[in-house]
Amino acid sequence: MDVMEFFQLSTGVWRSQRTTHHLAFKRTEAGESEIQVEALAADHAKVVEICQIHDVDPKHAIGGAFVSWHGAMGWDKDDENHEGSTVFALIPDIDQPRNGTLLRERGYAEIVPVAGQYHMDDDGGLVLTTEYETMSSIERFWFPSPSLRMRTSTVKRFGGFATATFCTEFRLGDASEVAANPEKADRSQDASEPTPATAEPAPHLSVLGW
Amino acid sequence: MDVMEFFQLSTGVWRSQRTTHHLAFKRTEAGESEIQVEALAADHAKVVEICQIHDVDPKHAIGGAFVSWHGAMGWDKDDENHEGSTVFALIPDIDQPRNGTLLRERGYAEIVPVAGQYHMDDDGGLVLTTEYETMSSIERFWFPSPSLRMRTSTVKRFGGFATATFCTEFRLGDASEVAANPEKADRSQDASEPTPATAEPAPHLSVLGW
Repeated sequence: MDVMEFFQLSTGVWRSQRTTHHLAFKRTEAGESEIQVEALAADHAKVVEICQIHDVDPKHAIGGAFVSWHGAMGWDKDDENHEGSTVFALIPDIDQPRNGTLLRERGYAEIVPVAGQYHMDDDGGLVLTTEYETMSSIERFWFPSPSLRMRTSTVKRFGGFATATFCTEFRLGDASEVAANPEKADRSQDASEPTPATAEPAPHLSVLGW
Repeated sequence: MDVMEFFQLSTGVWRSQRTTHHLAFKRTEAGESEIQVEALAADHAKVVEICQIHDVDPKHAIGGAFVSWHGAMGWDKDDENHEGSTVFALIPDIDQPRNGTLLRERGYAEIVPVAGQYHMDDDGGLVLTTEYETMSSIERFWFPSPSLRMRTSTVKRFGGFATATFCTEFRLGDASEVAANPEKADRSQDASEPTPATAEPAPHLSVLGW
């Protein structure tokens, strides 16, 4: 899979279940969000515009994506609003086309334009590395199946690991990849629904034991 | 990194912070465990014995590991006991030495001997694929730093994704990789300790936005 195939497969609406491990405090924070992704062609006006913001010749872009999201994390105050959108452009390295630069309109935490490095690994994963002024992040996205996307990210602040985040993301309208029917299992919609037997804690499966 | 380098780097005692996403039920389960890992040489008696159990010539093994663990998950009943240990042997493929078979003494969920496939990817990750009678799992382990190991795993049952698990694991006795002092931040040890300012929810950082 190349990087544009990754964003073409990402195109659609996704429901994200997110967990953040706050490493120094051994605390876990849960959240959910809805994400919309649209792959953009190399000649899309927004891709051209972002290249120009970053002083990059737009003819080097192979495409980009538009992403919007809304959601909430467990520790949010009422007035915090996890809504937003971003657009970015992808500029592959000339000699290593599976690596490149991701130019972004704006970062979530900082208002200045940001650029990150991307890399498509041999297992179809997209790895993004971004350096901010006082922190850095490494993220890996991959598709266990076309309708299930996963993500891990680690954030370093002042040289130490601060958080590690894991997201499982389902394509909305396609529950075919899930072992049981999520509508029936979502007890919040019908409190009288008996707990399915398979909601019992599953044994922690690992061939390594732990 | 090759697979024995991976287990040599894993050798030691680790504190694991674990989150399982039960996909069909949109529920999140948290847990913690302590893990001890010891790399074993190819001629270790246990490695030889496991090869013999699986009818594999022990001279094809490049080594193995001994793993023991104890911990608890959020939904456990009181009488459930997450303690155990396992030993396994590593048999590389002849033509592709970064791939191979992991022979195990016994599975966590099944008492019969199990064999899984391993693969070291180009980013230093160890990928394990294991087929059980009614389920399968794919796990990926990697080291963001020598004292921080991470793991994701997905489990399929009857063809559908059932759970996705994420673990962040610190080497005990080495907190140098963490952004703040975990001893001071662990409020369970000293309830009068004020909450550090940095325990506030961090903005969800991603160069992709979501």
